[in-house]
Amino acid sequence: MNSIFIKNVTVEGRPSDIDIRDGRFFRIAPTGNLPIPEGVEILDAGGLVAFPGFINMHTHSSMSLMRGIAEDVRDLHEWLDDIWTLESKIDEDFIYWGTKVACLEMIKTGTTTFNDQYWIPDEACRAAREMGVRPVLSYVLLDHGDPSAISRQREECESQYERSLRWEGDAQFAVAPHAVYTVSESNLVWAAEFARKHGLKIHIHVSETQKEVTDCQELHGGLSPVEYLDRLGVLGPDVIAAHTLWLSDKDVEILGQRGVTCVHNINSNTKLASGYRFRYQELRDAGANVCLGTDGCASSNNLDMLEAMKTSAIIQKAWRSDPTALPLNELIGTATVNGAKALGLNAGRIAEGCLADFFLVDTDNTFFLSPAPFAANFIYSAHSDCICTVIRGGRVLMRDGQVEGEKDILHNAQDMLKKLINP
Amino acid sequence: MNSIFIKNVTVEGRPSDIDIRDGRFFRIAPTGNLPIPEGVEILDAGGLVAFPGFINMHTHSSMSLMRGIAEDVRDLHEWLDDIWTLESKIDEDFIYWGTKVACLEMIKTGTTTFNDQYWIPDEACRAAREMGVRPVLSYVLLDHGDPSAISRQREECESQYERSLRWEGDAQFAVAPHAVYTVSESNLVWAAEFARKHGLKIHIHVSETQKEVTDCQELHGGLSPVEYLDRLGVLGPDVIAAHTLWLSDKDVEILGQRGVTCVHNINSNTKLASGYRFRYQELRDAGANVCLGTDGCASSNNLDMLEAMKTSAIIQKAWRSDPTALPLNELIGTATVNGAKALGLNAGRIAEGCLADFFLVDTDNTFFLSPAPFAANFIYSAHSDCICTVIRGGRVLMRDGQVEGEKDILHNAQDMLKKLINP
Repeated sequence: MNSIFIKNVTVEGRPSDIDIRDGRFFRIAPTGNLPIPEGVEILDAGGLVAFPGFINMHTHSSMSLMRGIAEDVRDLHEWLDDIWTLESKIDEDFIYWGTKVACLEMIKTGTTTFNDQYWIPDEACRAAREMGVRPVLSYVLLDHGDPSAISRQREECESQYERSLRWEGDAQFAVAPHAVYTVSESNLVWAAEFARKHGLKIHIHVSETQKEVTDCQELHGGLSPVEYLDRLGVLGPDVIAAHTLWLSDKDVEILGQRGVTCVHNINSNTKLASGYRFRYQELRDAGANVCLGTDGCASSNNLDMLEAMKTSAIIQKAWRSDPTALPLNELIGTATVNGAKALGLNAGRIAEGCLADFFLVDTDNTFFLSPAPFAANFIYSAHSDCICTVIRGGRVLMRDGQVEGEKDILHNAQDMLKKLINP
Repeated sequence: MNSIFIKNVTVEGRPSDIDIRDGRFFRIAPTGNLPIPEGVEILDAGGLVAFPGFINMHTHSSMSLMRGIAEDVRDLHEWLDDIWTLESKIDEDFIYWGTKVACLEMIKTGTTTFNDQYWIPDEACRAAREMGVRPVLSYVLLDHGDPSAISRQREECESQYERSLRWEGDAQFAVAPHAVYTVSESNLVWAAEFARKHGLKIHIHVSETQKEVTDCQELHGGLSPVEYLDRLGVLGPDVIAAHTLWLSDKDVEILGQRGVTCVHNINSNTKLASGYRFRYQELRDAGANVCLGTDGCASSNNLDMLEAMKTSAIIQKAWRSDPTALPLNELIGTATVNGAKALGLNAGRIAEGCLADFFLVDTDNTFFLSPAPFAANFIYSAHSDCICTVIRGGRVLMRDGQVEGEKDILHNAQDMLKKLINP
């Protein structure tokens, strides 16, 4: 199970064969130098280039069915009000089909693991397992300080955790207090303690907008969201902080010292006009673990990590007036190994022993006609449609551009969408 | 010739038929309401959505073979030195195959007209005519103040103009003084006068970097490039000014008053760290004609106008802290009708009487699964690979994703590239 032999694939510029066993890279060697095992599928890659699967470190996957609901018109806080109105209508079916669509889009664009923050994780888990993308799914605490919500959400989080122990496959469960402006102090503390008691990751929005920072400073004696969370004991290497866009030098220092994973979501931040001066270099130098995410489709408007990489890089170069900012090798890390590190996975690289999460790229098109290295052409010139085959943990999720059952997913989701918009 | 009947195509949300005669939209009506003409090809679009072909208003097309030659390392002026070294090796063959590759990439990404500034325009014209994309090709003046170059380039420009009169098809010839920092004052003036005498467009780089502005101010008594060009009498509605990125209020006023076309090239500007605060709103309000371009592949690194549209919009929203900046309808104009206006073409719209320059989009994928309008999904969510059929002046350039002879073009260009890199 989940063993496959890939012949004639380009790995770091060399024609290679890859022997994948039990979902991991077992042996990688120049083409013709490995014995072909019996009883496993042999896939002839015909010279396609292998690249590690992307790890999307912040998304709300079922929002794939809400993309574009507020174009060109809102700031983040008005936009959230609209989203919350729509979300009051969602149910198990919506989550199931929304996650199916999201996974389909992630597979097509080369993502093999995603860190999600959304509702009804049991249904999201079922959808992701069917599709084959590795999910990290969370219980979202969002109590707005309402005492009954505070206690109810703790109970729900506990029972959701119990149910997650019965999830099949390698889905991870996480605890997601939404943000400092939507979760009571007592539940921020409770969530962190609960997560640590059970060895779970903590997934939270932090300093996404300037308003979030100034509101927090007013409410909490001048403390920024980072300082406030640190004072509460929430921050640590198990924290995945989405956005971290409006940071003081002190914030950067704290995030570095605590070894927090900071997830940059440039397409969302720019499109919603939340900001763009993500302090990549300072965070990296301080010791934070910087990753990339797409955010949900309602803001970004897609789940394409390749696009996120290019946009992140060019905007870093632009706002810093430095064409060397966020160079290619580091950029690739933010979309692959750094995410794996945050999630405790031995993944994000094509190397013996690692999880066999990767995809194959067709370079026979104009975008790769260049003296530049493969990665430069792939990230700066091409689009994700050059990704033709995707393998996760040794399982083939897409073959020659086709995902099994994709048209059915689209048509079922279309029906779901009609119900949501015209109930 | 160049007549075709398109059945069952979605135009502005309505199932329609389109009768194209002699390269123009003759009749557009709801499906089933037009008589099907005899003796022309009938193309059943099967519900695909029609969109006007993009007009790329600033590029250097043969640089398609130089993409990625200086990743992550240079500022614009160092980068130009490298380019000029490489360019000393180029010949007719390089231009021919470079333009073929560029046209292939443009067709695949929906561009039907491009405004070029590069060498040996006769060869570029031959390549573009074969491919079917409508080119505007220029003679580039770039004398660095060298007296012999000044006079030689005038003569060459004159004879190139004479040769352009014999170009077949509807290629336009333009005069392209490179920039204020590379062309002598006398040739800036001469180029504008020569262009106006013959009714040609003037294509020039203006205020691309801060250095260009401060250098110009030092050399020319405090005048910015815009003020300097205006003092020389160069600016007018026949001027296509690439970049116009570093502008004072006075510059904006002048560009508006003169009705100059200002071409924004966001991917190039950000990647080379030249800047990003393009003053779209002020230029529009002042009366300038704002268009988009990709710049050459050595900087940007592709010719994808759909990507240029998204990046332009999200960066406008971000740097202005205004999510309503550069809204969709205006954004579409910058990539279509505004370019047509600048070039004197009745194009950029799907409307009776206009040039039949358009493409068909396949929406049966996750990117269009949304309650948002088609244009929002197309620009913010999808990628150019959803463009499946491209028609220019009634001639089919791409059909179901395939351009005739595309593999041969790639392989011939690959050989050309090897000669350039390892001569």
